[in-house]
Amino acid sequence: MSLDFELLGQDGAARRGRLHTAHGTIDTPAFMPVGTVGTVKGLMPEQVAASGAQVLLGNTYHLMLRPGAERVARLGGLHRFMGWDRPILTDSGGFQVMSLAKLRSIDERGVEFKSHLDGSTHDLTPERSVEIQDLLDSNITMQLDECIGYPAPAGEAERAMQLSLRWAERCRQAFRDRAGYGLFGIVQGSVDETLRQQSAEGLTAIGFDGYAIGGLAVGEPQATMLKVLNFTLPALPSDKPRYLMGVGTPDDLVKAVLEGVDMFDCVMPTRSGRTARGYTRRGVINMRNARHRDDPRPIDPGCACPACGTWSRAYVHHLFRAEEMLGPILLTLHNLYYYQEVMAGLRRAIEIGGVQDFAARFFEEQAQGDIPPHES
Amino acid sequence: MSLDFELLGQDGAARRGRLHTAHGTIDTPAFMPVGTVGTVKGLMPEQVAASGAQVLLGNTYHLMLRPGAERVARLGGLHRFMGWDRPILTDSGGFQVMSLAKLRSIDERGVEFKSHLDGSTHDLTPERSVEIQDLLDSNITMQLDECIGYPAPAGEAERAMQLSLRWAERCRQAFRDRAGYGLFGIVQGSVDETLRQQSAEGLTAIGFDGYAIGGLAVGEPQATMLKVLNFTLPALPSDKPRYLMGVGTPDDLVKAVLEGVDMFDCVMPTRSGRTARGYTRRGVINMRNARHRDDPRPIDPGCACPACGTWSRAYVHHLFRAEEMLGPILLTLHNLYYYQEVMAGLRRAIEIGGVQDFAARFFEEQAQGDIPPHES
Repeated sequence: MSLDFELLGQDGAARRGRLHTAHGTIDTPAFMPVGTVGTVKGLMPEQVAASGAQVLLGNTYHLMLRPGAERVARLGGLHRFMGWDRPILTDSGGFQVMSLAKLRSIDERGVEFKSHLDGSTHDLTPERSVEIQDLLDSNITMQLDECIGYPAPAGEAERAMQLSLRWAERCRQAFRDRAGYGLFGIVQGSVDETLRQQSAEGLTAIGFDGYAIGGLAVGEPQATMLKVLNFTLPALPSDKPRYLMGVGTPDDLVKAVLEGVDMFDCVMPTRSGRTARGYTRRGVINMRNARHRDDPRPIDPGCACPACGTWSRAYVHHLFRAEEMLGPILLTLHNLYYYQEVMAGLRRAIEIGGVQDFAARFFEEQAQGDIPPHES
Repeated sequence: MSLDFELLGQDGAARRGRLHTAHGTIDTPAFMPVGTVGTVKGLMPEQVAASGAQVLLGNTYHLMLRPGAERVARLGGLHRFMGWDRPILTDSGGFQVMSLAKLRSIDERGVEFKSHLDGSTHDLTPERSVEIQDLLDSNITMQLDECIGYPAPAGEAERAMQLSLRWAERCRQAFRDRAGYGLFGIVQGSVDETLRQQSAEGLTAIGFDGYAIGGLAVGEPQATMLKVLNFTLPALPSDKPRYLMGVGTPDDLVKAVLEGVDMFDCVMPTRSGRTARGYTRRGVINMRNARHRDDPRPIDPGCACPACGTWSRAYVHHLFRAEEMLGPILLTLHNLYYYQEVMAGLRRAIEIGGVQDFAARFFEEQAQGDIPPHES
């Protein structure tokens, strides 16, 4: 493993860093858009890059089924296949096996499951997960883990956490060390402080390029998530990046950065963009709402994205009503810019020791609600 | 009316010209992508412009129903609404009323129809069609006409042609003259030489900024279409542009340019792009075909479009198989570039008196069929 992480500074628990990979540097705190099957839905990579994203997440489960990891490798790896030359992080496939696949069976060895696409049977072991991510040429490989639901039945959380630890060790053994590529362990243990600390200590003893907090964003209240972060993060080495998987809303991101999280991924900005939900400085808006029908103002008057620079709410509303592809495209683009703008704001604020002020202004603006309706 | 048309030169019957509008110049022969409801499906206007398109077609029928012509006018006109600052031509709404609307009734006055969206009743007269196109701020307004099917019952072709002539006169009366905006008449008469010539003479007597050939591309064989062009175009004034509505394949375009057509519109490159059909120098290919699954070559190795510059057939194939939006986006973009490349090639060839050679090479290349399968 050899991902170099520089911790540039702290402001309280919030951290400003840089993670160096073979495909470039990631400024942290960082938000990673999700490019599930080798594409951020509806956008070209250059549009995603223009939003400020420095790293994408790819899904091992989806890519192993279609087009197949060996095929991607023959075609030059995922960067080349999808036309994205910046860093890529891939998940281990475990989460989607649990949520999407049918007839799965899990044991010490790994997971056997049937594809949700064609019912074909597949095997996912810690070793195979690492191999697939290697074939994809992923810069950041995630260990295979078992992610359980919330709330977890008694005993389940500990069993899954211990299994994940043993799989972490096997992933570490299987990982092929090379410059600019790395492997992250995943802390499990549900909402239990002792389990989370045991998991963090076990992973730290193995040693990884970074540490993810898994098993959150699975339905628990935000306060619970923050509490888990609060007692888990101090148990992790401070010189490695911490990645909160599958989180979240802009509000989640700001609060988790205050706790010391460095990296995030979430489908929210892209999925919401396709379903007419727009994120703005003044909260979430629904672009299908008739309130926007005659509004000549942009989605977010404070936004510098291409969608807000050219088009009105009235136009975006029209596109969604007419079920035109350009509606999801423009709103996805806007949402990604907004997410990256929040992250850039957090990074600047941490640099100058003003992250609390930044957060206070952020929450205040969000609480205002949408700009008043347009008077025509 | 005041659209200035310069006929720069001819090569046989093929013409090279320039049509000047308030929003810029259109080099002819020109192909107009279709932006049905205020968007070329899946693309941003800057991508459409980058393909070389100098003018878009908007659909009066769709836009009058949603978002409504008066709304578009309040929002600054169609150019501003959709973010396209180059010329726009709008059809009259007549064709879609015939093909999409329900319970229509047509008489001397105009057409009454029920919207295919919500069943609401609407009126479309020659005067209202011109008014709607004015509200949209269309640079080129099309007269309302009655377009009949092929083959047309005896008597129908003449009746519809005569009605269209009377509507042409009413549209001319209703049209608000202003610099850089113009009105085109539409020649009807099905495949009957006498009717077509009567129609052309009647329209010429009224006087228009340009003349469209309507009632083709409605199911007749290509040879029939070309025959109709051959006896209709000479009956039109040579100092005005001729526009063949709703045509066609690249092959149609080349042959119709040889007959003297200056302008075209068609949904083919965009609709085909969404359904995995790609146009290449060596014919049409289906990107869903397994033949492309492992092919690292671009859609068309001879193409300079962004899709061919970055992505492989294998990737585009994968996107269509995975039903990802980016598949239709990339293939639509490619098809539009290809159409514009054919038009640019025709214009250059006419300029140097080489249009017959160009056409011969074009047909020869098309006849070769797709590049041989990739050997991996």
